Amino acid sequence: MPTVAMVEYDQATPEVRAVYDDIMAVKSIDFVPNFWKTLASHPPLLARVWRGLDEAMRPGALDALTKEMVALAVSATNGCTYCIRSHTAAARKLGMNDTMLGELMAVVGTFNQTNRLADGYQVEVDVQLIRATEGGPPPQAGKTKAKAKAPKGKAKRAGKAARA
Amino acid sequence: MPTVAMVEYDQATPEVRAVYDDIMAVKSIDFVPNFWKTLASHPPLLARVWRGLDEAMRPGALDALTKEMVALAVSATNGCTYCIRSHTAAARKLGMNDTMLGELMAVVGTFNQTNRLADGYQVEVDVQLIRATEGGPPPQAGKTKAKAKAPKGKAKRAGKAARA
Amino acid sequence: MPTVAMVEYDQATPEVRAVYDDIMAVKSIDFVPNFWKTLASHPPLLARVWRGLDEAMRPGALDALTKEMVALAVSATNGCTYCIRSHTAAARKLGMNDTMLGELMAVVGTFNQTNRLADGYQVEVDVQLIRATEGGPPPQAGKTKAKAKAPKGKAKRAGKAARA
Amino acid sequence: MPTVAMVEYDQATPEVRAVYDDIMAVKSIDFVPNFWKTLASHPPLLARVWRGLDEAMRPGALDALTKEMVALAVSATNGCTYCIRSHTAAARKLGMNDTMLGELMAVVGTFNQTNRLADGYQVEVDVQLIRATEGGPPPQAGKTKAKAKAPKGKAKRAGKAARA
Amino acid sequence: MPTVAMVEYDQATPEVRAVYDDIMAVKSIDFVPNFWKTLASHPPLLARVWRGLDEAMRPGALDALTKEMVALAVSATNGCTYCIRSHTAAARKLGMNDTMLGELMAVVGTFNQTNRLADGYQVEVDVQLIRATEGGPPPQAGKTKAKAKAPKGKAKRAGKAARA
Amino acid sequence: MPTVAMVEYDQATPEVRAVYDDIMAVKSIDFVPNFWKTLASHPPLLARVWRGLDEAMRPGALDALTKEMVALAVSATNGCTYCIRSHTAAARKLGMNDTMLGELMAVVGTFNQTNRLADGYQVEVDVQLIRATEGGPPPQAGKTKAKAKAPKGKAKRAGKAARA
Repeated sequence: MPTVAMVEYDQATPEVRAVYDDIMAVKSIDFVPNFWKTLASHPPLLARVWRGLDEAMRPGALDALTKEMVALAVSATNGCTYCIRSHTAAARKLGMNDTMLGELMAVVGTFNQTNRLADGYQVEVDVQLIRATEGGPPPQAGKTKAKAKAPKGKAKRAGKAARA
Repeated sequence: MPTVAMVEYDQATPEVRAVYDDIMAVKSIDFVPNFWKTLASHPPLLARVWRGLDEAMRPGALDALTKEMVALAVSATNGCTYCIRSHTAAARKLGMNDTMLGELMAVVGTFNQTNRLADGYQVEVDVQLIRATEGGPPPQAGKTKAKAKAPKGKAKRAGKAARA
Repeated sequence: MPTVAMVEYDQATPEVRAVYDDIMAVKSIDFVPNFWKTLASHPPLLARVWRGLDEAMRPGALDALTKEMVALAVSATNGCTYCIRSHTAAARKLGMNDTMLGELMAVVGTFNQTNRLADGYQVEVDVQLIRATEGGPPPQAGKTKAKAKAPKGKAKRAGKAARA
Repeated sequence: MPTVAMVEYDQATPEVRAVYDDIMAVKSIDFVPNFWKTLASHPPLLARVWRGLDEAMRPGALDALTKEMVALAVSATNGCTYCIRSHTAAARKLGMNDTMLGELMAVVGTFNQTNRLADGYQVEVDVQLIRATEGGPPPQAGKTKAKAKAPKGKAKRAGKAARA
Repeated sequence: MPTVAMVEYDQATPEVRAVYDDIMAVKSIDFVPNFWKTLASHPPLLARVWRGLDEAMRPGALDALTKEMVALAVSATNGCTYCIRSHTAAARKLGMNDTMLGELMAVVGTFNQTNRLADGYQVEVDVQLIRATEGGPPPQAGKTKAKAKAPKGKAKRAGKAARA
Repeated sequence: MPTVAMVEYDQATPEVRAVYDDIMAVKSIDFVPNFWKTLASHPPLLARVWRGLDEAMRPGALDALTKEMVALAVSATNGCTYCIRSHTAAARKLGMNDTMLGELMAVVGTFNQTNRLADGYQVEVDVQLIRATEGGPPPQAGKTKAKAKAPKGKAKRAGKAARA
């Protein structure tokens, strides 16, 4: 049980009910999730959070599935049980299979590891990384890429495209 | 300066140098980032972390750009400066523009907010979410989707495809 | 430098400028903070985050200073440099002195400690705490308080009012 | 069950029992919470943590309710179930109603969002914020406030007092 | 139930079974923990994470018990229930008693407190600490130690060896 | 610069000076670190945090170096720059070399990874782990260990002692 009384659909004010209807329509679900029934204990919070989430999750430059997987990555990093269940369900509905989830978790795990190593050793940001990320994309991104070569070694891994 | 002496390319053992060459080749960069020169202070750590990261980041069911953006989302959630710079640079090289970054950050911000609300109110996971996420995809995912309808309301937002 | 180009007031679109004006008016400041000039790289993010923050920070059942101190407590717990500076400045302007800051930090420090002890030992929630926090305030809060007495001991600390 | 055997009141040494009595008296409760019975598995930890918490929570420049709400904000940010239940119960007893909790959660949610945006975009601290927060309150806090005006715009939101 | 179907020993492919056998042999346990049966839903993740963990946990300059206690400290700091149970069990098997656990938790609690105080007040790193941690151990560590004396005070706590 | 005025040794009250003297004596250093000069802006906080830290760090069942390495592991997991520098310096003085630091970081990195995988997949705690960690050490720890054998496989890694 949450720490406030949840507001059920039947007991909701018209304003809260309108938000509930919108949530179910946008998410194509036939129930109001506990999360929203809980936020409804403070109606302005319900309205504001739903409005913000709804806008942020609309497909745009990133598609809906990518956004759900990012939401799952954030929730796994924060260890939020409710959110992990919720975004796993949503991503599943949008087509995420076990392999995609496995690759997603692999990325989440890997960078939670390297984040703490970078901090733990107090690694300084390379000047190249600062230049490449200051105020937007580097002006000659293509050029930089073109001249990329190992300073001494000549390593070339056959059959593997260069990655960033 | 990190808390250990970084191992420069010229001073590196052949084993460390081989890792450095692989890093530069895979990432198409012409310098060894400080992160790796720092891990080289303990060669087994360098080898192991690079091998794990390299495998996790290879394009598979998820493409390279999606993986870099997930890595950036994790790093932003953890507040790791080095990692944020590094993955922003990598995602930029793979094509992430300001709009994509903006949408990514919107998702990161939104779910860091909702994660804490779900925890802060101690919201219980809905039985529907448990069923939908137990041991993989729900057997009748399609059916569930088909019968989705609002219990009371009839909300239908025109011009907007259903999202998970 | 942030990882996108900040949008200066003079270069901003009328929509972005309207948000900037609102920020400066509400916060009684004569400059646009970097945070907002950065979010303006993705205008819908600027508008949405500002609107949400503005609504959440309006004095209501909690006054403005309390809200700023809570914001500082959250930012300290997350280790966000920008946010710590920003909310310290705002709380100072609203009257927070060194003693208030000291007491606030004492609470932040104390509960970051106990949070990890409760998790680290896997302490189970007491049935009394579950009952007291299920679905809102306990029906007989007053009564519970009235009959509160130590089961065996008779400890009574003179000159110190009972605290929750 | 926690990962150590809890020390029940009847089995406790006189020293541990004295701490238990103090806890119940200070908190006006008639049971020893599991948290403290768990720490008693290592008596110096029990004594030290209780003493520190007791001192930090005494009403001073900040009142008891404000301190409990800050404790709840920290616990929600860390996702500590035990602590969230405990501080919600304590704040309820001190008078926190659903609206106050809703406003508190709104602030917690909002700044968990902005914290990650500030970090995620690597926003630099404004010189104004550094000056305003260096070594305590700005010498001419009043003066700074007096001359505050928008550089170009003339936005003035009627009926709304300036906030920090 | 996890969000994927766990792979039981009998249903596992020979490759997965080989990892399972290795896990049980290395850990001297007669069951495959749920964690590994879950990762097996994406076999490359199982293989990679186990290999990395196995290498990192082998006794070296640090013994097995110290490593398990560090793993427990990390898991308590992150609030990961599964991991706290797992590393507590492992450390118990290696000899950790209640006093050792109590001292470990005391350190975990203490530094989760001071971490947030250092960040919350934005304390700057002392030049002495930077010098002492730049690129490895200070060249004249011994010398520095030798001349250590209080600038004004003459405090000498009898019966207590100097600590770092 | 921190967000309060630091209290220098010469300006300190006798009470604060006594704490400073104790810090320098216990830590065998000839300067007062910024952290403590900052906490002195609120003298009760200085006294309380120092007293707690001093007690927690005294060698007991765990030695001083192990405690400093755990403190470093916590600080790396939290990404606290000041604390990472401080505990790296302290551990160095007590004998931590690059290999020990490398192994420590390997453990920190590994379990930050697995923590998020366990949460991200919502892995349930094994009944064996619950039994092994309920209320202290398992009654027949030795017996359990004795009968440990792989259920089907016969994996035996030569030249490698069993680990927990």
